Amino acid sequence: MKKYSEMSKAELRAELEMVQGKYDELKGRGLSLNMARGKPGKEQLDAVSDMLDVLKSDSDFMCDGIDARNYGNLDGLPSCKKLFAELLGTQPENVFVGGSASLQLMYDTIAKCYTHGRLNGDGPWSKLEKVKWLCPAPGYDRHFAISQSFGMEMITVPMTAEGPDMDVVEKLIQDGDVRGMWCVPKYSNPDGIIYSAETLRRIASMKPAAKDFLLMWDNAYCVHEFFGDYVPFPDILAECAKYGNADMVFEFASTSKITFPGAGVSVFACSAANMEYVKKLLNAQIISFDKVNQLRHVRYLKDKAGVLALAKKHAAILGPKFRCVLDALEKEIAPLGIAQWQRPSGGYFVSVNTMPGIAKATWQLCKEAGLTMTGAGATFPYGKDPQDSNMRVAPSLPPIEQLEQAMEIYCVSLRLAALRKLLSD
Amino acid sequence: MKKYSEMSKAELRAELEMVQGKYDELKGRGLSLNMARGKPGKEQLDAVSDMLDVLKSDSDFMCDGIDARNYGNLDGLPSCKKLFAELLGTQPENVFVGGSASLQLMYDTIAKCYTHGRLNGDGPWSKLEKVKWLCPAPGYDRHFAISQSFGMEMITVPMTAEGPDMDVVEKLIQDGDVRGMWCVPKYSNPDGIIYSAETLRRIASMKPAAKDFLLMWDNAYCVHEFFGDYVPFPDILAECAKYGNADMVFEFASTSKITFPGAGVSVFACSAANMEYVKKLLNAQIISFDKVNQLRHVRYLKDKAGVLALAKKHAAILGPKFRCVLDALEKEIAPLGIAQWQRPSGGYFVSVNTMPGIAKATWQLCKEAGLTMTGAGATFPYGKDPQDSNMRVAPSLPPIEQLEQAMEIYCVSLRLAALRKLLSD
Repeated sequence: MKKYSEMSKAELRAELEMVQGKYDELKGRGLSLNMARGKPGKEQLDAVSDMLDVLKSDSDFMCDGIDARNYGNLDGLPSCKKLFAELLGTQPENVFVGGSASLQLMYDTIAKCYTHGRLNGDGPWSKLEKVKWLCPAPGYDRHFAISQSFGMEMITVPMTAEGPDMDVVEKLIQDGDVRGMWCVPKYSNPDGIIYSAETLRRIASMKPAAKDFLLMWDNAYCVHEFFGDYVPFPDILAECAKYGNADMVFEFASTSKITFPGAGVSVFACSAANMEYVKKLLNAQIISFDKVNQLRHVRYLKDKAGVLALAKKHAAILGPKFRCVLDALEKEIAPLGIAQWQRPSGGYFVSVNTMPGIAKATWQLCKEAGLTMTGAGATFPYGKDPQDSNMRVAPSLPPIEQLEQAMEIYCVSLRLAALRKLLSD
Repeated sequence: MKKYSEMSKAELRAELEMVQGKYDELKGRGLSLNMARGKPGKEQLDAVSDMLDVLKSDSDFMCDGIDARNYGNLDGLPSCKKLFAELLGTQPENVFVGGSASLQLMYDTIAKCYTHGRLNGDGPWSKLEKVKWLCPAPGYDRHFAISQSFGMEMITVPMTAEGPDMDVVEKLIQDGDVRGMWCVPKYSNPDGIIYSAETLRRIASMKPAAKDFLLMWDNAYCVHEFFGDYVPFPDILAECAKYGNADMVFEFASTSKITFPGAGVSVFACSAANMEYVKKLLNAQIISFDKVNQLRHVRYLKDKAGVLALAKKHAAILGPKFRCVLDALEKEIAPLGIAQWQRPSGGYFVSVNTMPGIAKATWQLCKEAGLTMTGAGATFPYGKDPQDSNMRVAPSLPPIEQLEQAMEIYCVSLRLAALRKLLSD
C-alpha cells in the first residue's frame, strides 16, 4: 500500500471508489456496535461476581471492631482505608473511602471549593469573578464536563509523550485566576501515557500564583496494566509534600474497573490538614458511606497483592481486545499515513490522531455504519478539538468478535473520510 | 407521688437527698450506655442480613434488560424506581434512585441551589445577599447542620400537634428571602407527629414570595410504624401539583431503617420539570449510582407489601423498646409534673419537653452517670433551645436490658436536675 499523501488524484479517486464499496458493504450488514465508553465487558463482570459471596453470616460483618451494617465511620472502614493506602503508596490516615463513584468525589471536591472555599483559600469560589482551569488535552470528557458545569474558563494544555507540557503549565499558573488542573497521571485518558518522573517533579514543585490552587489527581488506572507487569508509580502526596505543596493535591481512585463499574468503592487521598478541613464539611453531608460494600471489597481483594492478582485476570480479557485494535490500526491504517496513535500498555483507551479535519467526519461515517464511537472533540474542553483530529477508541465493552467488526468499520470509515478530504482540498 | 411544683421547700430538699442517693448509686455502676442517635440495633440488622444472599449467579444481575453490574442508568434501575414509587404513592418517572444515603441527596439538592440555582429561579443562591430558611423545631439536627453549613439564616417555626404552625409559616413566606423549609411529615423527628390533612393542604397550597421556594420533604419514616398498622399518607407531589406548586417540592426517602443504615438505597422524588433539570446537573457528577445494591433491594423487598411485611419485623423489635421508654416516663416522671412528652406510634424517637431550663443539666447528669443522650438543644437551629427544655430520646440501639438501665439513669437525672432548679429559683 502507498501513503495517501503520495497518491495522485487519479489514484485517490480509484481508492475512494474501492473504499466506498467496502464501506457500503459494511453498512449493509446493519450492525450495532459500541466503542464509545470505557465500560468493562461482561466477561470482566463475571470474573468478579464471586465477590458477592464473601459476606454470609451475621458475624462476617464485624471488622476493626465495627459492625459494617450500621451508621458510623464517616471516613470509611479502617481496613478499607489501609487497603487503598497500600495501593496508592500512602498512609491510611490520608485516605477517605467514599461511595461507589470517584467521579462524584471529584465533583464534590470542586463543588465545595465553590460553596465553602479551599483550605487556606480566600473563601468560596462562587464569589470570584472568574475561575480558570488547566485541562491537559486530549483528556477525559467527564472532567471537562465538571469544569464546564461550574462555569470555569478551561484552558487547553497540550499533552506530550511525558504528560502535560510543563513549560506551558508553569507559565499559565503565574495567572492568579488559574485555580487548578486535571491530571490522569498513569495511563492518561485517552492517551495511555504515564507521566514521566521529570513531569511529576515539575508538577509537585509548582508555584502557582493562586495559593488555593487545586491539583486534581485522578489515579483512575493505578493498577490497570493490560500488557506486561504492574508498573509502580510514585505517591503524589509525598511528592507534593517534598516541595512544600502538601495541601495542593487531592488524589482519586476507585475499584470501578477492578470490581464493578459504578458499584465499587471510591476514595480520595489528601494531606492531614485537607482531611481535617473536608471531614468537617462532609460531616454535614453524610453520616457514613456504604461500609457493607467497603467490607465486601476488603474481604474479596484483601491487599495490594490480591488486587494485582485480580488485575491480571482483567488483563487476560482486555489484552487481546487492545491487541485487536492495535493490530487493525497497524495493518489497515499505518501504511496509509493518515493517522497516528499511542500504543499504551494500560488504561482503557487507544487515542488516535487522524490527519487534521477528519475526526468528526470519521465519527459520522462510523455512526451511519452502526458503530458508536466517543464523540469526536469530546477529548477537548468544550468538545472542541482545534485540529478535528483526536478520536478515543474504547475496546473494553464488545466481545472480541464484535470488536473485529467494529475495527473493520472504523478503519474503512477513517480511510473514506481521509480520501474525501484529500480529494476536496 | 406528689407533683414537684406542689412540694414545699422542705419536701423538695428531702426528695433531693433521696434522688441524689439513687443517682450516686447508679453512677457508681460505671455503665456506658447510648440513646443519642436513631441507630437500629443489632437484632434489626441480623433480621435483614439474608438480603445479601439474593444475588448469586451471573444471570441474577440482569433486570429490566440491564446488567446491574455495569455503568449506566443515571436515575436508577427501573424496577427500583417502581418499588419506591409504590411506597411513596407516586409514579416511577418521578423517582430518582441515588446512593446509600438520603442525607447526601438532600445536601446535594441544596448545594445545587447554591452552585447552579433552582429551576425557575434567578440563578445560584451563592450570589444572594441572604438565604432564610424555615426550621420547624424541635426538628432534625442534621437538617439544621446542612442549613448552617451553607450559611442560611435559620428561622424557628414552632411545632404543633398537627405539624409546623402554619399561621407562622404563612406569614414568614411573604418574605422573599425565605427560600425553603425542612419537613419530616410522618413521625416527625423528634416529635413523632404525623402532619394533619389540614397542615398538608396549607403546605401544598403555600404562596411563597420566593418563586424558587424549596420544600424539603424528608419522608424518612414513611413505613416506620412500631405500634399498630401501617398508616397511609398522601403523596406530597400530587398535593402540591393540585395547587399549582408541582415544582416546589423535593421528597426524600431511604431504606436506611428498612435494610442497612448507611448501606441501603436512597431516593428523591420530584416533578417532571425538576427531574429534567436536576438530571442535567447530575449528569456532570456521576455516571450511575450503585445498581447492584438497588437490584439487591428490589429482589429482597419485592414491592410495598414486602416492605410492610419487613416493617412488621422491625416493629416487633422496636415496639418493646419504645414501650420501655414510655412506661418508664409514665411511671417515674408523669406523677411529678416535671416533663411532658409525645406518645408516637412510629419513627425513631421520643421527644421529651422538660420544665424550662433543665434539659442541658439533665444531659450533663446523664453523661456523668454513663449515659449518652442527644445533645440538649440539638433539636433546634444553631443548637439553641430557647426554653432549654427539649430532649430527644432514641431507644433503638441498646438491647432492652440496657435500655431499662438507661431509662433508670435518665429519669433519675431528670428528677435531680428539676429538684436542683426548683430549689435554686
